[in-house]
Amino acid sequence: MTTTLTNQQFRLAARPVGMPKPTDWRFTSEPVREIADGDILVKTLYLSLDPAMRGWMNEGKSYIRPVAIDEVMRAGGIGRVVASKAFGFKVGDIVSGSLGVQQYWIGAANDKTAAFYKVDPKVAPLPKYLNALGMPGMTAYFGLLEVGLPKAGETVVVSGAAGAVGQTVGQVAKHKGCRVVGIAGGKDKCDFVVDELGFDACIDYKNDSVKDGLKAHCPNGVDIYFDNVGGQILDDVLTRINMKARIIICGAISQYNNTTPVKGPANYLSLLVNRARMEGIVVFDYADRYHVGVAEMAKWMREGSLKTREDIVQGLENFPDALSMLFEGRNFGKLILQVAAE
Amino acid sequence: MTTTLTNQQFRLAARPVGMPKPTDWRFTSEPVREIADGDILVKTLYLSLDPAMRGWMNEGKSYIRPVAIDEVMRAGGIGRVVASKAFGFKVGDIVSGSLGVQQYWIGAANDKTAAFYKVDPKVAPLPKYLNALGMPGMTAYFGLLEVGLPKAGETVVVSGAAGAVGQTVGQVAKHKGCRVVGIAGGKDKCDFVVDELGFDACIDYKNDSVKDGLKAHCPNGVDIYFDNVGGQILDDVLTRINMKARIIICGAISQYNNTTPVKGPANYLSLLVNRARMEGIVVFDYADRYHVGVAEMAKWMREGSLKTREDIVQGLENFPDALSMLFEGRNFGKLILQVAAE
Repeated sequence: MTTTLTNQQFRLAARPVGMPKPTDWRFTSEPVREIADGDILVKTLYLSLDPAMRGWMNEGKSYIRPVAIDEVMRAGGIGRVVASKAFGFKVGDIVSGSLGVQQYWIGAANDKTAAFYKVDPKVAPLPKYLNALGMPGMTAYFGLLEVGLPKAGETVVVSGAAGAVGQTVGQVAKHKGCRVVGIAGGKDKCDFVVDELGFDACIDYKNDSVKDGLKAHCPNGVDIYFDNVGGQILDDVLTRINMKARIIICGAISQYNNTTPVKGPANYLSLLVNRARMEGIVVFDYADRYHVGVAEMAKWMREGSLKTREDIVQGLENFPDALSMLFEGRNFGKLILQVAAE
Repeated sequence: MTTTLTNQQFRLAARPVGMPKPTDWRFTSEPVREIADGDILVKTLYLSLDPAMRGWMNEGKSYIRPVAIDEVMRAGGIGRVVASKAFGFKVGDIVSGSLGVQQYWIGAANDKTAAFYKVDPKVAPLPKYLNALGMPGMTAYFGLLEVGLPKAGETVVVSGAAGAVGQTVGQVAKHKGCRVVGIAGGKDKCDFVVDELGFDACIDYKNDSVKDGLKAHCPNGVDIYFDNVGGQILDDVLTRINMKARIIICGAISQYNNTTPVKGPANYLSLLVNRARMEGIVVFDYADRYHVGVAEMAKWMREGSLKTREDIVQGLENFPDALSMLFEGRNFGKLILQVAAE
């Protein structure tokens, strides 16, 4: 049945300098081969578009190997099994895994890189599995709880507050009894974060002074800063941290497309003065406990005390532009590319 | 007896811009008043000259209040009690405390700012009480052990390796079974650190590439970096850290006299990639356990497995120049100003 299928793909054509350009991609198409014993064929439904993708396009040692030139671009996603010769997977199953920016994934069901696991469409709408119940949610949950170690009454600041990770960080922190102040770009995002998600306040970094906002909204200083953006905002927060503060370095989207060197935090000596800590996290380290995070957050979602917002762009062909939305802050909520109808 | 004494002092005349200049000081002299009940009069023997002094000269919130304009410059030291109307202190006692840059300290023996405690000249030569058995030693001991959490077999890198804190960091790390690589300025200091103190290697940052040195001498990467200098060296080490590395931010002497903003570590995202941690320390936090550190290090000194070197400059009048030795790396070992003969 599979021989008549065509698989459209985005492959990395060149390593970008600064913001990725259309010519950094090659849009290809190839026939889908027959599946062999142990294989599954997965039809991509949704792909997760994440700031981390920019890093995967660079050469050099990182927490994961770079995407090779001419390789299909790496992307996590949700798909439907449309053919299977593998034990434990049947046609119609919904899976989450590293599908790549393509219409179909084919290979061994137990491929370690793809890291498939089945998801239950009855528990939550599928896009949620790329948001609070997926990598961004796990990043928020384990990063905040295991590195941030929040205590009730503490003040938590999170940048990229309307983004995939930030949304959940703030709501998990509220569940732990913290005061939560978001930082986001634009009034709409700030209103959403406060009015819909229940943050205590949100600073609009595009229109207001972050320093003044921190003074106004963190009268007792900052105990935890969950940083998704780096750059000047990290430096501004460093001037307001409390003794024994914890800064979680999750990302630095403001710096990913730099053609000049990364801006290091000039105020890092605030760590010394305040005996504070800055620590990096990578979500994969918590893989053996994802089920704990998913269970608790799915419960909160059912109870209505964890809300998430997705920004879903339609069509594989729109991948390059959709990705650039992230770096320009044009997405509003977790950015997802819908590749096929459910 | 005390009324005939004159007390020469260095007072802060102006807040320095960049490196302190002679005109930032005022050399004054005043008669020593009679002591009142509860007072002691202490004759300064040795003063500790430390990089942290540069920070105390600046305005602004820090871990300790700034020295005020016209105030006697703050300095820890060792002195001899020459008059006492205080319980527990008698003439001839040797005390350690915040004496200030002056010939005599007078006031209540229980003054919290001075924080006097008696030291035993029979246990170790007095200058050692300003080095391994004093603040630098306590900084090294508790910073390395409590924040660095060294494990046998790990690689520890320490900058300012021939300085007061660095000397001891490396030797404590050797006691814990670590591979120890120092970074110091000049061949003499590097030879001393390796040949006298027993470090495994030392990189001469003034004459050699730190990056190349780290590659050569840390074949298994860097697990702990004890940073006394900041600047480019911190950035170089960040490129070589291991998973779960710990970076102890103790100081940043390369940045203290900047007239431009502090250079933040551009490679800080290595913390993310490596799930590593950067944490500041201030020695005062461990005050209630100094006796533990002093006891263990005094034992090592008696056994010959902890060596220290002091660089002793003579004469109160040489304070300004002696202080500048620190920032130019002209001292070789813990810098001490001898104000009077023992």
